[in-house]
Amino acid sequence: MGQVTFTGPGALRDFAEWVTSNSFSRVEILVDQHTAEFCLPRLRKVIDWAGDPIVLPVGEESKSIDGLHHVWMNLLDRKIDRHGVLINLGGGVITDLGGFAASTFKRGIPFVHIPTSLLAQVDAAIGHKTGIDVGGVKNSVGTFAEPDALVVDPVFLETLPDDEYRSGMAEVFKHSLIADRNLWDLLDGYRAGRSCPPGWIQQAAEIKLHIVDQDPREQNRRKLLNFGHSLGHAVESVALTKGILVRHGEAVAAGMLMEAWLSNQLGNLAQSEWDAIRERLTRVYEPLSTKLLDPDTGIAFLRNDKKNRNGSILMVLLDQIGKGVIDRNVTEEQCRAAMHAYPGFYSGE
Amino acid sequence: MGQVTFTGPGALRDFAEWVTSNSFSRVEILVDQHTAEFCLPRLRKVIDWAGDPIVLPVGEESKSIDGLHHVWMNLLDRKIDRHGVLINLGGGVITDLGGFAASTFKRGIPFVHIPTSLLAQVDAAIGHKTGIDVGGVKNSVGTFAEPDALVVDPVFLETLPDDEYRSGMAEVFKHSLIADRNLWDLLDGYRAGRSCPPGWIQQAAEIKLHIVDQDPREQNRRKLLNFGHSLGHAVESVALTKGILVRHGEAVAAGMLMEAWLSNQLGNLAQSEWDAIRERLTRVYEPLSTKLLDPDTGIAFLRNDKKNRNGSILMVLLDQIGKGVIDRNVTEEQCRAAMHAYPGFYSGE
Repeated sequence: MGQVTFTGPGALRDFAEWVTSNSFSRVEILVDQHTAEFCLPRLRKVIDWAGDPIVLPVGEESKSIDGLHHVWMNLLDRKIDRHGVLINLGGGVITDLGGFAASTFKRGIPFVHIPTSLLAQVDAAIGHKTGIDVGGVKNSVGTFAEPDALVVDPVFLETLPDDEYRSGMAEVFKHSLIADRNLWDLLDGYRAGRSCPPGWIQQAAEIKLHIVDQDPREQNRRKLLNFGHSLGHAVESVALTKGILVRHGEAVAAGMLMEAWLSNQLGNLAQSEWDAIRERLTRVYEPLSTKLLDPDTGIAFLRNDKKNRNGSILMVLLDQIGKGVIDRNVTEEQCRAAMHAYPGFYSGE
Repeated sequence: MGQVTFTGPGALRDFAEWVTSNSFSRVEILVDQHTAEFCLPRLRKVIDWAGDPIVLPVGEESKSIDGLHHVWMNLLDRKIDRHGVLINLGGGVITDLGGFAASTFKRGIPFVHIPTSLLAQVDAAIGHKTGIDVGGVKNSVGTFAEPDALVVDPVFLETLPDDEYRSGMAEVFKHSLIADRNLWDLLDGYRAGRSCPPGWIQQAAEIKLHIVDQDPREQNRRKLLNFGHSLGHAVESVALTKGILVRHGEAVAAGMLMEAWLSNQLGNLAQSEWDAIRERLTRVYEPLSTKLLDPDTGIAFLRNDKKNRNGSILMVLLDQIGKGVIDRNVTEEQCRAAMHAYPGFYSGE
């Protein structure tokens, strides 16, 4: 069966009806220590479930072979089979890992994603990719697997810390920039430290759902979602090398600034639109430490990325706000120039 | 792309041409210590490959999380990507594990099965199922994944020990009994301790390929392949409980005898055909130790099997030689009677 999607206020309640009507032989729930405390009680309010959840420690470290083994062993002990369902209640770590465990347990049992972070609600939990980190490489193993249901309910964002919220917003901005001018205009009302109306989040989630639906295996249009992520990943790789902590959304915001600048320098993005993007993103996101803008480390990373070939980097640029274009060739020299220009975006140079 | 199949004498050479024409960015080979010694040299003769294989210890123990981790780490270190290919050269352990590792590495890289045991050539390596054993449960995790090529070459059977050969023959008999009267008639010429003409093996492999093609997810016709495996698995579970070693093919041969007997007792199998099956299988396979025919342990296992529901056991029976029927209800009492009758098949009672 295809994925059923519940979004917006009341999504969780609608999902509860769906679970009941499906009469699964068993329901198991995967959480981390945070979502066990803050999110599971809300889920228990709407579904009749008295079991103990499968619990993992908070953080990326759980997205490992050990975490996977823990989940598989729990699924075995609880005797779940293809007539049961695993509910993944948490951020991207829980949905990525839980999706991988479920899609391989007995060669695939039904599973449901209930993302509880903004980042997972608009990005990580959408798109049928599951995975864990092996050998220190993010998502080096995984599957393409569709959850039976996806539940995006704003109720879970109420307990989200401000920094997490703002980090997740980077993907919301991204979705608007590549595909939805109207959402971009609405987002003008967003202020750091406050949350968005649920409708905006829902709109952002639906942009990704739609793109993934058109191109599930990322052969074409889905690549749009990498906007801001080429130079954003370069920043993250420098951070990793130097042991500096940077949130994914902050790195992506910096990546979007640099890639929008390149879109104006090399592509079709009008000066006025570049100015608007610069104004908006520098208002919401603090400037990154210049230590993170190390072109030698960052560009070496891009050179090894599987998406790039023959010394030039394939990047998503913007033709205009709301319209991204894939597979643009950018030279290493031009990437270097973007990193060099970045601090100036903040000083208005 | 769909699976390319090379079978019969010369299959390996035809496969070598296919590999060359595909210009994979990297070729890696997975073997166990036996196939590294006996089979890899033959493969090296036909493909231009100077690398070191990924090597696992011989035996089911390698089909574990540790074995999987070892293969994933090797694939990472060797920097293989979606433009490369992993060749699984070995018996069912290597094809099951290698298929699972490849189908999840970077969410799926191309892979090829070159089964080197008779059991793998006619059964394990065919059918798009991959898996490892977790928590002591066989194939408790895995994927449905199609290899890019399957190579069934009789050259590898030359070094196979007699017992292994005879064990693999059980699946050849099974394929003929459920789907091919003509192959059953040919198999009258088989004598334990000797090998079959390659054409018979090829025919058996093609029966499975055909059935799997019609019903890849085992919702219907593919269940035919479980003939002999309900009571065969019951025997294996008793063996496991009591620490007795029994080859898969020997257990399946006993299972086929009991299930053919039930087909005659409860179903449509004519007395003359049951007599022919009994004569043939008791001639090739030694009688099992009566210790393995423990109904209490064996039937408790069947009761927990995911295929069965509500106290009755769903089994494949034979309507006639060459025609199996799925989803026949057999009671626990009737299973017990079959185990009780088994020794009599050998004494001619």
